[in-house]
Amino acid sequence: MRIILCGFGVVGQSLVKLFNSRSEDLYAKYGLKPRVIGVFDSKGSAVDKAGLELDKLIEVKKKFGTVKNYANTKNNMSGVDMIKNLEADVLIETTASNYKDAEPGMTHIISAMKKRMHVISVNKGPLALAFPSLMELATYNQVIFKFSGTVGGGTPILDYAKNSLRGERITSFSGILNGTTNYILTNMAKGLTFETALKDAKDKGYVEADESLDLDGLDAAAKLVILANWVMDMKVTMPDINCKGIRNVTTDDIKKATKNNCAIKLIASCNKELIVEPKEVSVDDPLCVNGTLNAIAFTSEHSGTQTIIGKGAGGMETASSILRDLLDIRQEIVKS
Amino acid sequence: MRIILCGFGVVGQSLVKLFNSRSEDLYAKYGLKPRVIGVFDSKGSAVDKAGLELDKLIEVKKKFGTVKNYANTKNNMSGVDMIKNLEADVLIETTASNYKDAEPGMTHIISAMKKRMHVISVNKGPLALAFPSLMELATYNQVIFKFSGTVGGGTPILDYAKNSLRGERITSFSGILNGTTNYILTNMAKGLTFETALKDAKDKGYVEADESLDLDGLDAAAKLVILANWVMDMKVTMPDINCKGIRNVTTDDIKKATKNNCAIKLIASCNKELIVEPKEVSVDDPLCVNGTLNAIAFTSEHSGTQTIIGKGAGGMETASSILRDLLDIRQEIVKS
Repeated sequence: MRIILCGFGVVGQSLVKLFNSRSEDLYAKYGLKPRVIGVFDSKGSAVDKAGLELDKLIEVKKKFGTVKNYANTKNNMSGVDMIKNLEADVLIETTASNYKDAEPGMTHIISAMKKRMHVISVNKGPLALAFPSLMELATYNQVIFKFSGTVGGGTPILDYAKNSLRGERITSFSGILNGTTNYILTNMAKGLTFETALKDAKDKGYVEADESLDLDGLDAAAKLVILANWVMDMKVTMPDINCKGIRNVTTDDIKKATKNNCAIKLIASCNKELIVEPKEVSVDDPLCVNGTLNAIAFTSEHSGTQTIIGKGAGGMETASSILRDLLDIRQEIVKS
Repeated sequence: MRIILCGFGVVGQSLVKLFNSRSEDLYAKYGLKPRVIGVFDSKGSAVDKAGLELDKLIEVKKKFGTVKNYANTKNNMSGVDMIKNLEADVLIETTASNYKDAEPGMTHIISAMKKRMHVISVNKGPLALAFPSLMELATYNQVIFKFSGTVGGGTPILDYAKNSLRGERITSFSGILNGTTNYILTNMAKGLTFETALKDAKDKGYVEADESLDLDGLDAAAKLVILANWVMDMKVTMPDINCKGIRNVTTDDIKKATKNNCAIKLIASCNKELIVEPKEVSVDDPLCVNGTLNAIAFTSEHSGTQTIIGKGAGGMETASSILRDLLDIRQEIVKS
């Protein structure tokens, strides 16, 4: 299966390592032979129609900070050129999410779909801003569009809601969808001020380069958009979310919550309205998880409330979700 | 789809209610038209090859405590006769679990498979005593064998581990798989003695007629057998489980756990060995749920530890899992 990989950060590199370490097993067990024919990062690209050497790719990236130096050629293709000129089966989009125009991911995805490539995105931007129209575009071009890694990292939340609960009707859900703010709020509950907790989270590398994505709830809101579309068949985008971040949570709020046997969590909820806001959650509620954990509780018509808890991020975790999507695409292709 | 229903207790009745309330939706959305052609309980049976009237079935059971009075006929078929003489597509086995000989469920399932009926069982007994050979029998007779409701009630734990985590390798798991003992232990942590907590659980109807199934860990062990076979491809049965119940948990043990910021839970675990025993679990661990809740944590190679929490029992919850299995069977049949 010929793959173009957009972005070669932590997730992209983890994915390549995963392909490398599991190549025999993936072929034997699933018949999957991933062949990465093109990769690009912000500084340049590497192309080999016969398949890039995965070890070398990692090594070059480590040494030079870019894949550009993979070969000694001068014709360094841009990402869009690569998508337009290479024949590939699947595009994997792992560039950074942004919620202004979702570029460059949006252009990558649209170009790939128009060229009849299947698309896997762990970039939330394009989905947050244009979920309904991207799904339409995928249907129109008869390609498969997967995005398991956008919500819950390696924890298959989207799949659980859609497949494991088939036949069931989910009536509402709410969750802690951003690990960074959960980490900050957990430390505030331990007595740290917002500023100190934020600094600690930054030191640990948990905070996005643009801290607003975490602190103002945009990351959680993007995931809520994706869940609402995928699980509840709503046709919504970012502007439909009523979103409030954690900047105004005070030490007093935290103390008050503790007194009520509660903790303040940034909760994304879908119950008629779509809301992201700090809320008191009982510490006895399975949803009330600490640290960087994510949790989501689905309330269903017949089988009660079910909570799934897991790491919501991480390179290898997210890479494992891309692998899942790839196996699904392979299975679909084989069928047809 | 022609169905024989074995057992008409809480789960069987909930299933019939579910069929009744969702009939239009099930047909429109999934093309499923369940036709219950035979039902039997411990006192008698009801048969109609054209399909029994579901409303009437519930009414008769409520009035007479058995389905025997559904029609004014004398020829009251036994369960086994029904399976041998009626042409049906699916057998749904909901009689009570027992871990001595697993009867009558075992005979129902084996007879049905030999007659090339697909089987859905929420009765854990046959699976606990003979999982590997029942799977072989199903394969040999080319029938589908489903048992989602045996673990987690309406919470699709088996499906999650098998399908939502495809491509991933689960290395170990542990869980609270019996709600009754969890309820008792939760109340003991609140200060009740074992005896008082047990009495309260009995009053609430949480304890099995044979209390040993809960208290001595047999129910949890049966679920562990099913998980080990299904999720980890182990070929094991009840005697392979090292099983200890909660009868010897003392108030002192509970107090000691509380001091360590822990709670004592009856944990079923699969990590090389298969063990059911009371263990201290940190209250910060997502697994540490209270009341009658069930929880299970799967540790995977790439995507970390993922915990699923839900109601582990309940008539409608378990009925919803049967419906899921039925939809799967329908989908498989349509494909072939």
